[in-house]
Amino acid sequence: MADGAFLAADWGTTNLRAWRVGADGAVLQSADFSLGVSRLAPGEAATRFEAEVRPALGAEGLPALLCGMIGSTLGWTVAPYIDCPASPETLAAGLIEAAPGVRIVPGLRCVGLVGPDVMRGEETQILGWLAADAARARGRHLLCLPGTHSKWVKIEDGAVTRFVTAMTGELYALLGAQSVLRFGPDQAQDLEAFDRGAAAAGDGGALSARLFSLRGLTLAGLVSPATAPSWLSGLLIGAEIAGLWPLMAGDAPGRVEFVGEPSLCALYARALGAKCSHFGLTDGQAAAIDGLKAIWKAAP
Amino acid sequence: MADGAFLAADWGTTNLRAWRVGADGAVLQSADFSLGVSRLAPGEAATRFEAEVRPALGAEGLPALLCGMIGSTLGWTVAPYIDCPASPETLAAGLIEAAPGVRIVPGLRCVGLVGPDVMRGEETQILGWLAADAARARGRHLLCLPGTHSKWVKIEDGAVTRFVTAMTGELYALLGAQSVLRFGPDQAQDLEAFDRGAAAAGDGGALSARLFSLRGLTLAGLVSPATAPSWLSGLLIGAEIAGLWPLMAGDAPGRVEFVGEPSLCALYARALGAKCSHFGLTDGQAAAIDGLKAIWKAAP
Repeated sequence: MADGAFLAADWGTTNLRAWRVGADGAVLQSADFSLGVSRLAPGEAATRFEAEVRPALGAEGLPALLCGMIGSTLGWTVAPYIDCPASPETLAAGLIEAAPGVRIVPGLRCVGLVGPDVMRGEETQILGWLAADAARARGRHLLCLPGTHSKWVKIEDGAVTRFVTAMTGELYALLGAQSVLRFGPDQAQDLEAFDRGAAAAGDGGALSARLFSLRGLTLAGLVSPATAPSWLSGLLIGAEIAGLWPLMAGDAPGRVEFVGEPSLCALYARALGAKCSHFGLTDGQAAAIDGLKAIWKAAP
Repeated sequence: MADGAFLAADWGTTNLRAWRVGADGAVLQSADFSLGVSRLAPGEAATRFEAEVRPALGAEGLPALLCGMIGSTLGWTVAPYIDCPASPETLAAGLIEAAPGVRIVPGLRCVGLVGPDVMRGEETQILGWLAADAARARGRHLLCLPGTHSKWVKIEDGAVTRFVTAMTGELYALLGAQSVLRFGPDQAQDLEAFDRGAAAAGDGGALSARLFSLRGLTLAGLVSPATAPSWLSGLLIGAEIAGLWPLMAGDAPGRVEFVGEPSLCALYARALGAKCSHFGLTDGQAAAIDGLKAIWKAAP
């Protein structure tokens, strides 16, 4: 079991968030950096980490635990995927040393909807959600982590048993920026349009046709340009839920634990509607640091 | 009824193809121009047409009939959509004069999968398909026009009664160019990977999850980078068919008439597989000129 103070970091594609954690587990300092792995030159992770991240946190000489895309081929050192089922202990046993005192959390792999599915970074948030309440280590839970690549995750008796990824957020960004459906930035959320879009998802099939219908609706003045982004968001989230809910919720009672950005989680909850009788909500950043602390505790 | 020689043009978003047609209906000359409406400055259509298109065809002074996006808000003059059911006669009656002697074919509108659906340009190809065989003016037919925005079209007794658009080609281009699934240009078609992608479409639901599965399959080496484009093409076409076939084919016998680029039509036919017992194939360019001639004949 590792203990003592350490530097924790969620090092993703775009950004890096890091914390200095005291020996008692308290977060003493945190900082954000525009240092995501997509912005690093090859081989640059180690030097930027030592030169920028450690000093900003006053964490020179501390051991470090990193999660996220920093363990991918674009990152510092590859931390190979661990197969499901995966518990805090199996993840801790799979830590990879990138440099003396610097360890990286591996991603997860499972049998997905079609072939293998993977995650890298979300496994730490999931462990953080598990660690936040000892009662969560028993029984079955369904988690949803909305985002660029949304994850629906089954937890059974404290282990991740299966998950499916939907690239809903990435589709939304691509379609809004560059397709025939494109729109300007920074439109206000319109919940009425979101609901209409979610209803237009139907059974979730024929998505490429349902998407094009936004063109006809805007040409006819039935969806305004200002509310088109909300309609599109509703359609894509509604189609994701229509497609994945039967697979992931099964015959379990309608309870979902959301982990992520709260306003996006709220949209997913809204689109779920009557399918779901209870929601939990955990902020994604809080879950990430909780997860890093839990893995640190379990680390050999 | 209009007769005599005329200049015919299919003036789309990216390109313009034009023909000089003799009084007997024979095509005497044709030319392509990189003059699609997305490449025109506002108000420029008339001057470019007179200065470049007419001289290249030796068609100074001839009446002209144009179809495609040139009738949209991006084009020369807006030719408002005609509502379905639409026959050659109703389209001819809806021609809009953009300038003396220059007329534009209107697009079509119908009740689509979600709200109104629209087409502009494909209506002329459909009429060309109808005009190519007098027997087609009777009975029910199902047409498929694959492309950036694929159209599935019901014809009943010589009129377009309903259609649905799927933005499958546009999704393919966006995902291949800029998403986590992106790949390089000019990969050779791999039919085995196409078939596996089409099979991965399943019932067509959960498309955003099925799309992400290509990431897991390539990471695991189960789909090679070189065959990923074919797999993606199979998935998107398969999902389009799974979603729209029940709606458009109904309980009709499995017969589809394809109009479009022959190699793309062949992929659609391949993905349809046993759903369909007979295919027809008409080249899209041939259908466009046939349609312009048919509308010309029917024009007031």
